[in-house]
Amino acid sequence: MCYGFVACSCLHKATLALRCQETRSTSGGGEERRGEERTSGCTHARTHAFGALWSCHLRCQSFFQFAVMAVDHLSGERATAQFDVEVMKVYLAGGQREHEIATRMAQLVASDPIFSKEDRVRLARKDLYKASIRKAGHAWKTILEKGLSEEESMKLRHFVDEPTFTDLHWGMFIPAIKGQGTEEQQHKWLSLAYKMSIIGCYAQTELGHGSNVQGLETTATFDPATDEFVMHSPTLTSTKWWPGGLGKASTHALVYARLITDNKDHGIHAFIVQIRSLEDHVPLPNVTVGDIGVKFGNGGYNTMDNGFLRFDHVRIPRENMLMRLATVTKDGKYERSDKPRQLGYGAMVFVRQGIVIDASNYLSRAVTIAVRYSAVRRQFGNKDEPGELQVIEYRTQQSKLFPLLATAYAYRAVGFWMKWLYADVMERLKNNDFSTLPEVHACTAGLKSIATSVTADGIEECRKLCGGHGYLCASGLPELYAVYVPACTYEGDNTILLLQVARFLLKTLSQIGKVKPVGTAAYLGNVKQLSTQNCKVSQGHEWSNPSILLEAFEARSARQAAAVALRLARGSGSEADFQENTPELVESARAHCQLIVVSKFIEHLQTETIPEGIKEQLMLMCNTYALSQIVENAGDFLATGYLTGKQIALAKDELKHLFDKIRPNAVALVDAFDHTDDYLGSALGRYDGDVYTHLYKGAFKESLNDTVVVDGYEEYLKPLLTQNLWGPQSKL
Amino acid sequence: MCYGFVACSCLHKATLALRCQETRSTSGGGEERRGEERTSGCTHARTHAFGALWSCHLRCQSFFQFAVMAVDHLSGERATAQFDVEVMKVYLAGGQREHEIATRMAQLVASDPIFSKEDRVRLARKDLYKASIRKAGHAWKTILEKGLSEEESMKLRHFVDEPTFTDLHWGMFIPAIKGQGTEEQQHKWLSLAYKMSIIGCYAQTELGHGSNVQGLETTATFDPATDEFVMHSPTLTSTKWWPGGLGKASTHALVYARLITDNKDHGIHAFIVQIRSLEDHVPLPNVTVGDIGVKFGNGGYNTMDNGFLRFDHVRIPRENMLMRLATVTKDGKYERSDKPRQLGYGAMVFVRQGIVIDASNYLSRAVTIAVRYSAVRRQFGNKDEPGELQVIEYRTQQSKLFPLLATAYAYRAVGFWMKWLYADVMERLKNNDFSTLPEVHACTAGLKSIATSVTADGIEECRKLCGGHGYLCASGLPELYAVYVPACTYEGDNTILLLQVARFLLKTLSQIGKVKPVGTAAYLGNVKQLSTQNCKVSQGHEWSNPSILLEAFEARSARQAAAVALRLARGSGSEADFQENTPELVESARAHCQLIVVSKFIEHLQTETIPEGIKEQLMLMCNTYALSQIVENAGDFLATGYLTGKQIALAKDELKHLFDKIRPNAVALVDAFDHTDDYLGSALGRYDGDVYTHLYKGAFKESLNDTVVVDGYEEYLKPLLTQNLWGPQSKL
Repeated sequence: MCYGFVACSCLHKATLALRCQETRSTSGGGEERRGEERTSGCTHARTHAFGALWSCHLRCQSFFQFAVMAVDHLSGERATAQFDVEVMKVYLAGGQREHEIATRMAQLVASDPIFSKEDRVRLARKDLYKASIRKAGHAWKTILEKGLSEEESMKLRHFVDEPTFTDLHWGMFIPAIKGQGTEEQQHKWLSLAYKMSIIGCYAQTELGHGSNVQGLETTATFDPATDEFVMHSPTLTSTKWWPGGLGKASTHALVYARLITDNKDHGIHAFIVQIRSLEDHVPLPNVTVGDIGVKFGNGGYNTMDNGFLRFDHVRIPRENMLMRLATVTKDGKYERSDKPRQLGYGAMVFVRQGIVIDASNYLSRAVTIAVRYSAVRRQFGNKDEPGELQVIEYRTQQSKLFPLLATAYAYRAVGFWMKWLYADVMERLKNNDFSTLPEVHACTAGLKSIATSVTADGIEECRKLCGGHGYLCASGLPELYAVYVPACTYEGDNTILLLQVARFLLKTLSQIGKVKPVGTAAYLGNVKQLSTQNCKVSQGHEWSNPSILLEAFEARSARQAAAVALRLARGSGSEADFQENTPELVESARAHCQLIVVSKFIEHLQTETIPEGIKEQLMLMCNTYALSQIVENAGDFLATGYLTGKQIALAKDELKHLFDKIRPNAVALVDAFDHTDDYLGSALGRYDGDVYTHLYKGAFKESLNDTVVVDGYEEYLKPLLTQNLWGPQSKL
Repeated sequence: MCYGFVACSCLHKATLALRCQETRSTSGGGEERRGEERTSGCTHARTHAFGALWSCHLRCQSFFQFAVMAVDHLSGERATAQFDVEVMKVYLAGGQREHEIATRMAQLVASDPIFSKEDRVRLARKDLYKASIRKAGHAWKTILEKGLSEEESMKLRHFVDEPTFTDLHWGMFIPAIKGQGTEEQQHKWLSLAYKMSIIGCYAQTELGHGSNVQGLETTATFDPATDEFVMHSPTLTSTKWWPGGLGKASTHALVYARLITDNKDHGIHAFIVQIRSLEDHVPLPNVTVGDIGVKFGNGGYNTMDNGFLRFDHVRIPRENMLMRLATVTKDGKYERSDKPRQLGYGAMVFVRQGIVIDASNYLSRAVTIAVRYSAVRRQFGNKDEPGELQVIEYRTQQSKLFPLLATAYAYRAVGFWMKWLYADVMERLKNNDFSTLPEVHACTAGLKSIATSVTADGIEECRKLCGGHGYLCASGLPELYAVYVPACTYEGDNTILLLQVARFLLKTLSQIGKVKPVGTAAYLGNVKQLSTQNCKVSQGHEWSNPSILLEAFEARSARQAAAVALRLARGSGSEADFQENTPELVESARAHCQLIVVSKFIEHLQTETIPEGIKEQLMLMCNTYALSQIVENAGDFLATGYLTGKQIALAKDELKHLFDKIRPNAVALVDAFDHTDDYLGSALGRYDGDVYTHLYKGAFKESLNDTVVVDGYEEYLKPLLTQNLWGPQSKL
């Protein structure tokens, strides 16, 4: 029984009321869609359909809420789950405490209208930016007001869920000062930064220079006469370009520039430069600064003021150079400290660990939307059964969707391991043990590279898996892609990072017999054995054996690395030779990184801390990830001679068996990511699966629907329709 | 000598002036970037940098124009070309006449400020839409004013370059009436539509029903008492959803609905329904219509009013059903005509031919931008040489970029062939010869599918190949992707189309020995031979032999098709069995389609109409396309046993040789696509390669830069900086 039906009987309401009634008597989605409508005719809807519908719609919001709360189109899906979703939620959150904090912060954000994301894709840039700095400030106020811990504050910002200047202030400006500033400098600047008396950004990239930091052109020339540095942008290409928070918000910038003393270039160093007045926010003299313009996508990074910055001989005190690792004395003498530069590696591992966890998070959001929608959406039928089939039943859909689901789980597991790795590195650094650093650097660089690339492509794949509706911003997916894809470029371009991994692999191979490879490269010690023994799989189910999977990845990676090393050994050994083989080197590095993910996921599942109730599902995710990677990269496994075409066919068959095991758990497996409807911001990915009601409802928020007759009709459409193109009313 | 330098000497101008002077004395890009600046200090710039720069910038626009016109950073690249670009332009345009029309229409659009795309990514939806209907109307006025031919009109709209309601009016509404209307109906409706006295759209897709047309729920029930049809939307999911032009512009809709007479459902038929008043454009009674909301990306399809539409028992005259293929008489009798339904295939081939040509065009735009920018951008160096290297020199860049360049050429060649195919089909239909239709249907469905998928992914790949700057809308690439990607969904979802191809392949194989396969499926007649003979390549250069390439694609496709056919033959033959094998079926269909592209490109180059001066480059493109597809799909070629790992390695080596041949011609090969700067709308893809000047210049158009201190500072930033979060000025 639905009370809304009595209060208002226009077409729209009647349909919804009916939906509500029907879905109460049936479980699962879809059955009610062809139900006939019992409206007896709504007079105001008949006289002026759109306007009436709209006003009626407004009046009946409360009914709408009621109708919405009452359905769960996915309850049938949830009933088939074979594990305890709540246990999985806690596991994925990283523990009970983390889960509790996340839940609380998600609710805090969802319940505060200032943090609403509702209009984000509809706002013009200026309004979007204004709303964003408001949210950033409001988040800070909330943090102070509620006395949130650092962990809680980070979670709060996480759920506010849009890029903003404070990301750079907390995530780059402050850590850089911590890492590169002397104790005195830290005391001075951090005390200001911690209370946000200054807003800082991180100005490294230039218009003409990205990944190659050594190519930066901005200069900081020491003038002993005044004990100052003169900051200068000598060319157009030296313009700082891209730093987030620089364009409109920051008062200070951490500027990377070539240090010049006495006509000598000492390379790139960091300087703190005030760029805006603390009185009125006006840029300081000789500082040219602004926003670089609109970026990819609706919402997305357009909430961020990525900026440009030029200096025309701007003077700063000598003390503004960060001097922990190198100093310039009052008389212009340059000295490098003898502190090991490796000390900075801890921060790098920390950042990359965060990026991999982030990748898992973003991918899991896209997968949640696509899995839920695929369970709601129906299309075509099976000749043998009546009605249309849920899209999630189709093998073509499963073969794209389920591997992505498994990947989100795999990256979560790898993220957990990287947390341990970070702790391990920090411990070693404390004891001046730098032995594992090359391996750690290669492994984290590689994981950053593949996790971000796979995630960006995966989000877009999920969008495509939602068919036409995925193209609507109401799906939440266009924004998600737009906001995520820069991760492939920042913190190291992904191709360049893979080449660094490749160099490490080459070096490791060249030292076999002399130096024992460690950690994630240890398998290379067995390169000979891995190069000769081929896979023994002869039946499909063997492909679900972790040790068989692991060996396959080790063999493929070892063989690819050995093959490219051999090619290089036969060459001249020149840099040009290396360049010539970069495509193969990149492939080899990617193979190594995929192995790391597989091996760490398997390793993780062998620890004792995983509750038994969810272990089976995690193993299913692990096997699905590994096997789908084998199928996807079949060319590598075949070309190295480790697998045969027959074994690949068996892998494909086994994968289908795994998909059958995932199918009844699919919705529960995404529920376990615990994304709230507010955080997902998607009509397609709603928890209750009430997709169509919310797509339809969403259309009424479109600004073009503000008026019945569209703005521009008189000037541009009417002259057409009335053949009055040259008439006085026409503005064509 | 640069006069601008004299007129204004602020920092910005000085730098540009210097660039201008220097680039005149050097050729090629990049050399001047480190040139030291000779400004003697501009006082107004020093006192209030931003504002002064801005006003100065405005005053000196004329200088700026001059500076811009004077450089060509890519002249060095053009000097190394080994073919006549002008000849290639004419070839790619499809002939001298086509080239002339395209050039003239491109200029016409570029010179008319109403058609400017400048602000597109910066406008809020309402303003964007308004500007778009103005352009559409202005285009129509221009067509009438200049008396343009149909061909010229199409080109004009092509260069206006944004989706708008007239696309559907001319491209779907009118053709559907032509195809499905009786002569009388055509006369009535087309006479109105041709002069735009009515605006029509094509309302097929519903909220709950996309690709499965038979699942549509809208009903058209005949009422013999009044000789009318009653149009009705019985459920929420029956709401028409997505039709372009429906949301705000159209007066009429071609509505697909279930025809019901005397309680009998006759399936889906087409009806013309007026939805808005021709007097005041207000929706008619019982019609609920509006725009469905914001879509993916900046600009993009947001210029289009994709709409929703609901009917509450709307009555239309019986004559409004299009009755060429089926009729309903006054007394409600339903009759199917005996006209062969295949007659509609001609239109389908025509549309798909256009889509493949379009794919080539869109991909070529992205490739033009990425190639030119890769030649301008420099990054890192080769230890053996001074300075940074052009990004286009890197093998990793080439191995992604050059195959896409070759693909754009390949699709162009296939497009030419499809034009012939269309003429052939029309000729056969005239003679009631339907023998080739199944093959034509499969081949065009498959080509539509792979061309659009590859192009969408290729555009995004080009964006990524432009590094960080590709993420700026100023690159032109975000808009290009956003506007193109729906092509993967409309006119048939790409996965569903491939399954149709697969069904055709299965049927063809099952008839071998009984029916001789024709056209693009002819090779399947040799399936036995192709399944047993393996590739003979033992040296890299053999991979540049067209017949070797062709055989490889034939063998792989025949083997994949035979393998999946065998799997199905061993099964129960049920629909469920087919579903179980859909991933393999899709792969097999894709292999078949890649073969078609390769074979048609090779065939095309063997015709005599290609001028000798460009034939070598076209063969280079053909070989690059084919070989890169082999490397990319190595898994298939290896798994079927046709190639060995060694042969794949040789293919990779040969591909690098091809890249070396492309390298000196790369910029000329994209110049030949003949895209004007106006059409490309990209700072990165400019003809003159003056990338950085235009990125920098572009930033000044950003609305956030309208004021020195950003809107929102007082309420949201100042309270933070002054620790006055709870103060009266704070709105946090």
